[in-house]
Amino acid sequence: MLLRVINPNTTASMTAVIAASARAAAGPGVRVEAITAPMGPASIESHYDEALAVPGVLAAVAEGERDGADGYVLACFGDPGLDAARELATGPVIGIAEAAMHAATLVGRGFSVVTTLDRTRGRARDLAARYVAADACRGVHACDIPVLDLENDPSVRMRVVALGRAALEQDGSEVIVLGCAGMADLGAAVSAELGVPVIDGVAAGVALAEALVRIGAPTSKRGEYATPPAKPYVGRLRAFGT
Amino acid sequence: MLLRVINPNTTASMTAVIAASARAAAGPGVRVEAITAPMGPASIESHYDEALAVPGVLAAVAEGERDGADGYVLACFGDPGLDAARELATGPVIGIAEAAMHAATLVGRGFSVVTTLDRTRGRARDLAARYVAADACRGVHACDIPVLDLENDPSVRMRVVALGRAALEQDGSEVIVLGCAGMADLGAAVSAELGVPVIDGVAAGVALAEALVRIGAPTSKRGEYATPPAKPYVGRLRAFGT
Amino acid sequence: MLLRVINPNTTASMTAVIAASARAAAGPGVRVEAITAPMGPASIESHYDEALAVPGVLAAVAEGERDGADGYVLACFGDPGLDAARELATGPVIGIAEAAMHAATLVGRGFSVVTTLDRTRGRARDLAARYVAADACRGVHACDIPVLDLENDPSVRMRVVALGRAALEQDGSEVIVLGCAGMADLGAAVSAELGVPVIDGVAAGVALAEALVRIGAPTSKRGEYATPPAKPYVGRLRAFGT
Amino acid sequence: MLLRVINPNTTASMTAVIAASARAAAGPGVRVEAITAPMGPASIESHYDEALAVPGVLAAVAEGERDGADGYVLACFGDPGLDAARELATGPVIGIAEAAMHAATLVGRGFSVVTTLDRTRGRARDLAARYVAADACRGVHACDIPVLDLENDPSVRMRVVALGRAALEQDGSEVIVLGCAGMADLGAAVSAELGVPVIDGVAAGVALAEALVRIGAPTSKRGEYATPPAKPYVGRLRAFGT
Amino acid sequence: MLLRVINPNTTASMTAVIAASARAAAGPGVRVEAITAPMGPASIESHYDEALAVPGVLAAVAEGERDGADGYVLACFGDPGLDAARELATGPVIGIAEAAMHAATLVGRGFSVVTTLDRTRGRARDLAARYVAADACRGVHACDIPVLDLENDPSVRMRVVALGRAALEQDGSEVIVLGCAGMADLGAAVSAELGVPVIDGVAAGVALAEALVRIGAPTSKRGEYATPPAKPYVGRLRAFGT
Amino acid sequence: MLLRVINPNTTASMTAVIAASARAAAGPGVRVEAITAPMGPASIESHYDEALAVPGVLAAVAEGERDGADGYVLACFGDPGLDAARELATGPVIGIAEAAMHAATLVGRGFSVVTTLDRTRGRARDLAARYVAADACRGVHACDIPVLDLENDPSVRMRVVALGRAALEQDGSEVIVLGCAGMADLGAAVSAELGVPVIDGVAAGVALAEALVRIGAPTSKRGEYATPPAKPYVGRLRAFGT
Repeated sequence: MLLRVINPNTTASMTAVIAASARAAAGPGVRVEAITAPMGPASIESHYDEALAVPGVLAAVAEGERDGADGYVLACFGDPGLDAARELATGPVIGIAEAAMHAATLVGRGFSVVTTLDRTRGRARDLAARYVAADACRGVHACDIPVLDLENDPSVRMRVVALGRAALEQDGSEVIVLGCAGMADLGAAVSAELGVPVIDGVAAGVALAEALVRIGAPTSKRGEYATPPAKPYVGRLRAFGT
Repeated sequence: MLLRVINPNTTASMTAVIAASARAAAGPGVRVEAITAPMGPASIESHYDEALAVPGVLAAVAEGERDGADGYVLACFGDPGLDAARELATGPVIGIAEAAMHAATLVGRGFSVVTTLDRTRGRARDLAARYVAADACRGVHACDIPVLDLENDPSVRMRVVALGRAALEQDGSEVIVLGCAGMADLGAAVSAELGVPVIDGVAAGVALAEALVRIGAPTSKRGEYATPPAKPYVGRLRAFGT
Repeated sequence: MLLRVINPNTTASMTAVIAASARAAAGPGVRVEAITAPMGPASIESHYDEALAVPGVLAAVAEGERDGADGYVLACFGDPGLDAARELATGPVIGIAEAAMHAATLVGRGFSVVTTLDRTRGRARDLAARYVAADACRGVHACDIPVLDLENDPSVRMRVVALGRAALEQDGSEVIVLGCAGMADLGAAVSAELGVPVIDGVAAGVALAEALVRIGAPTSKRGEYATPPAKPYVGRLRAFGT
Repeated sequence: MLLRVINPNTTASMTAVIAASARAAAGPGVRVEAITAPMGPASIESHYDEALAVPGVLAAVAEGERDGADGYVLACFGDPGLDAARELATGPVIGIAEAAMHAATLVGRGFSVVTTLDRTRGRARDLAARYVAADACRGVHACDIPVLDLENDPSVRMRVVALGRAALEQDGSEVIVLGCAGMADLGAAVSAELGVPVIDGVAAGVALAEALVRIGAPTSKRGEYATPPAKPYVGRLRAFGT
Repeated sequence: MLLRVINPNTTASMTAVIAASARAAAGPGVRVEAITAPMGPASIESHYDEALAVPGVLAAVAEGERDGADGYVLACFGDPGLDAARELATGPVIGIAEAAMHAATLVGRGFSVVTTLDRTRGRARDLAARYVAADACRGVHACDIPVLDLENDPSVRMRVVALGRAALEQDGSEVIVLGCAGMADLGAAVSAELGVPVIDGVAAGVALAEALVRIGAPTSKRGEYATPPAKPYVGRLRAFGT
Repeated sequence: MLLRVINPNTTASMTAVIAASARAAAGPGVRVEAITAPMGPASIESHYDEALAVPGVLAAVAEGERDGADGYVLACFGDPGLDAARELATGPVIGIAEAAMHAATLVGRGFSVVTTLDRTRGRARDLAARYVAADACRGVHACDIPVLDLENDPSVRMRVVALGRAALEQDGSEVIVLGCAGMADLGAAVSAELGVPVIDGVAAGVALAEALVRIGAPTSKRGEYATPPAKPYVGRLRAFGT
C-alpha cells in the first residue's frame, strides 16, 4: 500500500517532521511518501495562505494518481483543498484536522484543540462543525507561536503542555488535539505530561487512510466527488486545465 | 463609490452578463466595474474548478485595493475565496450566494435554490449552513445545464421556471434564489412567471455592498480577517508572496 | 423611493434620533419618513411592552400602504410585529435587529450585541437564532441603562464603549451590534474608539430596505406572508378588523 | 386550585368547546374557568390576527391576577402572548402548542401536527423549534379548514383522521398533535381511529398547569419573566400603562 | 390511578426519600407505590452502574404491567432504561431527568442542573440534548457528593444552595433542576433560599405521569415503542426471555 | 496487538460471520478474537433486547481486560454498552455503528443506512446525531428482515442492493452503511453492484481500533470514562459489583 502525505506548505524541513510522524503511524507493508507542495506559501497562517496552498496540493494529488498512490493525507490543520483533492483521487483522502477530530471523539467525550495563531481559531471551529457532532469540540486555543518557529523554539513543548492543561480544565474536555502539522513530534511527550490522549493529526491521518484502504473504502465517485469535468484553464494556472 | 464585481471564471462573455445585472442594481453615484479573473478555469463546476478560481479572485482583489475600490462582489455562486479576499480588502466583500441567501430571508420564510449541475448542490447547502439560519434554505435543485450553456441555450428560462415552480411546491418555500451568476439576466422574467421574489445574487451582492459602504461598515480587521502576515511564496504562485 | 421608518414606541424625541440616523443612511433619491407609533408604551423594555407596541406598528404600516410606501423599517431592537407587518406590506419590511445582525455577519465572523437592560437579552438571543447562523452571535451584553435615559445620560457613550471592548475580548467577536434604536447616534463614535465595525440597526435597516426595493425584491405573498383573511374584530381593537 | 383558560379569540362558542375539554382534563379540586378575550379578532389565522389577539390575552391575565388565579392556559395553538403573560403572572402560564408538544414527546419519539390553514404551518414549526428537541416535530400538515368552520363542518373529523393517517406514514411519526383549540373535542375519536395517542393541547395545557401548581413551580421571576417596569401608555392602549 | 415509582438502585433508604416526594406530588385519587430495583448497584454513579441498573428497572416494569400500573416514574436522574421500559409499558413512562427538564422549561427561559458527581455531567447534557430545545439547559454543575452520602451529610443543603446560586449567576439561568433522586427532599428549602423555582424530578415525574394518564395519553405502540419481539435469552438473564 | 470483537447477542453462528469480516480487516500482526456474549438475547431487535445485551458486553470487556486485550469492537449496530465499556477498558472501544458512520463521512458527503427492522431506525438516527455532523446521515432504511434470518435467507443480498439503490437516489447520498453486524459478509458484493463504497461496521471497527492502538490513543481516563467507583451489587447481577 502506498500512501502519499502532502505537506501543503513549501518548507521542506517541516515535511521532514511530518514524514517522521507519518512513518511511525503506518503499519507493516505500508509505504509512506512525504511530499512538499511544489508551489505556494512557506507556511499557512491565514485564509489567504491556505487558499493559495491548494494549487500545490492538487498538483501533488494529480502526481500521486499518476504514480498509483492508494491514499492521501493532507498535512496542514486547515485541510486545504480536501474536497477538490477527493475529486481527483481514486482512493481515500484525509485531512489531518479531520483525522484528529474523528480520532479524538473515539477516545473521549469532548476534545480541545491547541493551535498556533489566534487568527486560525475560526477555521478550526469551522472544520469541527463540518466533521464532528456539535458538542465534541469544546474549545480552540492558540499558543501564539508562528508555524515555522515551532521547530526552532525550545519552549514550544512547555507552552503546548501549559495551554493543554488549561484547556482541559476550562473546557471540561478529555482529549487534546494538536492543531498544526508542525507539532507532529510533540504528541507522546505532551500526552505523558497531561495524562490524557493527545492526538497528532498526521499520525491519525495515516492510520485512518490505511484503515480505509484496507477495508476497501475508496472515495465515492457518485455525486459531489465525481471526477471534475474537463475544461480549459488560462494564465498561470493553465497547466491545471485539460 | 467604486465597486468591483469579480467574475471568478475566465470567460469574458459571462462577465458581460454579470456587468449588466450589477449596473442595474447600483444606486446613483455608484461606479460598478466588472473584472474577469486573470487566471483559472473557463467555468466553475466542481470543487477543483472552484479552488483553482481563487488565485484569480485574489489577484483581482489585490488590484482593486491598489485602485481604491470601496467594496467587492464575488460573482460565482460558490463564493470562491471569500474569506481570503476579506483578509486583503479594506471595504466589504460579498459573495453572491451569501448576498442572495441573506436577501431571500428578508422577504420570505424559506427559499429554494435553483442551480446548474447536480454535483454543486452540496456546496450550496454548505454555504446556506454557514450564512443563514437552519431552516431558511428549504432545498437546492439542479437544472442540469452546464454553466457556459446558460447563455446560448434558449430553453434555459423555461427550464428554470419549471424547476422553480416545482421547488416552491415541494419545499414549501416562498422565494427562489438563482444559483449561478450566469442566470443573472433571468431574475425579473422568472419572478413574473412564478409570482414570488426571485433573487439574483449579482444584483443582491451589489446592492448589499453599496449598503455596507454607505453605512460605514468595512470588513473587520480584528481577528480572522486581519491582513495576512507577509511571507515568501514559491513556484507558479511566487507573485502572491511578499 | 419612499421608506417609512416606524418607531414602535410612543416617545417622539426618540423618533427624532432614529430619523437622523435613518436619513444619513439613505441614498440619493430615497425619501425617509420617520413615524411615531400612534398607541402603546413610551419605551419597550419587556415582552409586555413589546407585545403592546405591535398594534401601533401595524397601524403605521397600514397607513404606509395607503400612502404608497415602498418599504419599512421597524426601529426597535425586538423587531416587534415583523411577521404581521409583512402580511400587510407589499414592499419589504426590515427589523433593525434583523438588519444589524445580517450586516454584522457580512463584515466579520462573529458579533456581540450591546443592549440596554439585562432582561431583554433573551429576546436578542431568540432573534439571533432566527436570523443568522448558529455561531454568528457570540454574546449579548447589557449596559443597564433604561431606554429613555439613553438620550439624556452623558455617560452612555463611555459605557457602551467599555462594554463593547469587554465583549470583543470575552466573546472573541469582531463586530459590535448596537442593541437599541436609541443608540442610533453612537455608531461612528463607538467604532472609532473600538477599531471595529459598529452596526446601528436603523442605518442598516434603511440601507437594506433600499437595497431590496432597488433589486425588485418585495415581500413574498406566497405562503406565510400572504395578506391576512378579512374578519371582524371587537373591543378596543375593533378598528383593526374589516 | 383555580386555573384560567383563556381563549385568545373573541368567539364565545369556541370558548365553550375549549371549556369542555379543559374541565374534562382537570383533577379533583381544580376549578377551571374559561374566558373569552375581551378584544381582538374573531379567529386567529395569520400573524396579524395573532399579534392583535395579544392585548386581549394580557387583559385576561391581568384580571386573573386580581382574581387570584393559580395558573393559566392560553388556548390558541400559536401561543399568543406567552412570554408577556408570564411577566404578568405569578403562577405558571402554558400555551396549548407548548403543552401538546411537550406531552407528545413523552409518549413517542416523533409527532406530527395536524392544523387548520397552510399559512399557519410556519408558526407551528417555529414553536416546535423553541419548545422541543430538534427532531421531535416530524411534520406539520394543514387540513385547509378555516378555524370557525371547525365547529360546523361535519366532515372535520373525517378529514383530520385522513390527514393524521397520512402524516404518521409520511413523517414516520408515532403521535398526533391537534393544531387548533377548535379541535379540542376531537382527540378521543381520532385516537380511536388511528390507534396512536392524539394530543389535544387544551387538555394537555390544563393537566400540565395543574401539575406545575401542585409541585410548587411558579413562573420564575428572575430574569426574563420579571414583572414589567411601570410606564405610561398612550392611545387606544392607554389602559395597559401605569 | 396507580403509579409505580421505581428506584433504579438497590438502596431501600433512598427509595423511602423518593416515595415521600412522590406521594406529596400526587393528586387526590392517585395511588403511588415506590419500588426498589430487585437487582443491580447500590447507587448509580457511572455509565457502568447505570447500564447494570436497567435489568432491575425492566423487571419492575414487567411486574407493574402484571399488577395493572397506569404509569411509571424512573427515579434516577440518568433515566436508565427509559426506551426499553416504554416498550414494555402500556401507560406512560417518565424519567425524572426528562420530567424535571420539561417542567423547568415551562417556568423559565433557561435552567441549570445541580448534580452529584462531576463524571455524570456528560450524561445530564446528553439527556438535555434529547429532551429539550438547544439552549434550555444552560449548565450542569456537580457538588461532588457521592449519591449515598446525600442522606447523611448535613451540609448537603447548604452546598446545593451555594452551587445553585453560583449557577444562576454564571449561566444566566432562571430555574434550578435537582440532578439526583436523592435530593428529592431538598426542593422547597432550596427554592426558598434562592428565590427561583427548584424542580425535583421525582415530584415532576409523578405530576407529569398523572397528567398524561388523565388526558388519555399512553405510550404510543406505533413504531419504536411497540412491544419487543419474543425470543430466547440465555445465562443469568434467561428469565428476561420468552 | 490483541483486539477483542464482542458479539453482543448470544447466537454463535452470527459470531462466526462477524469473526470472518473482522479478521479480513485486520493488518499484519493483529490478533482478532471474536467472543459471543455470555448472557442475554439471541438477537437484538428492540431497546429491550439492547439494554439486556449490555451486561453480557460488560462481562466480556472485563474478561478482555484480564486477558490484556488492546482494544475492543462491539459488533451490534446499536453499539450497546459503549460508554460503560469505555469505563472498564484501558484501550479504545469502538461500536460498529460509530465506526461505520465515521468511515462513511471520510469517503463521501452523505451516507444512507440500510438496516433490518423498521423499529430500530430511531436508534440509528440517535447514534448518527451523537457521532457525526448534522447532515451526514441522510436516511435510515429498513429491509424488514429479522436479524437471525440474515444468514439463512438467500434473498438478503438482493434486497439490500435494491434498498441501497433506492436510498442513494432518494437521499442524495454517496455511501451506504450496512446497519447490522449480520450483514458483515455483504459489503463487497453490494458495493460491486451499487458502484459506491459500502461500509461494514465490523470491518471498519476493527480497522479503526487497530489505528487507534497504533497511534497510541487509548480511552481517556479523565472525566466521563474514568474507572467506575467500586460498590456492592445485589441479585442476579451481584457478580458485577465489587
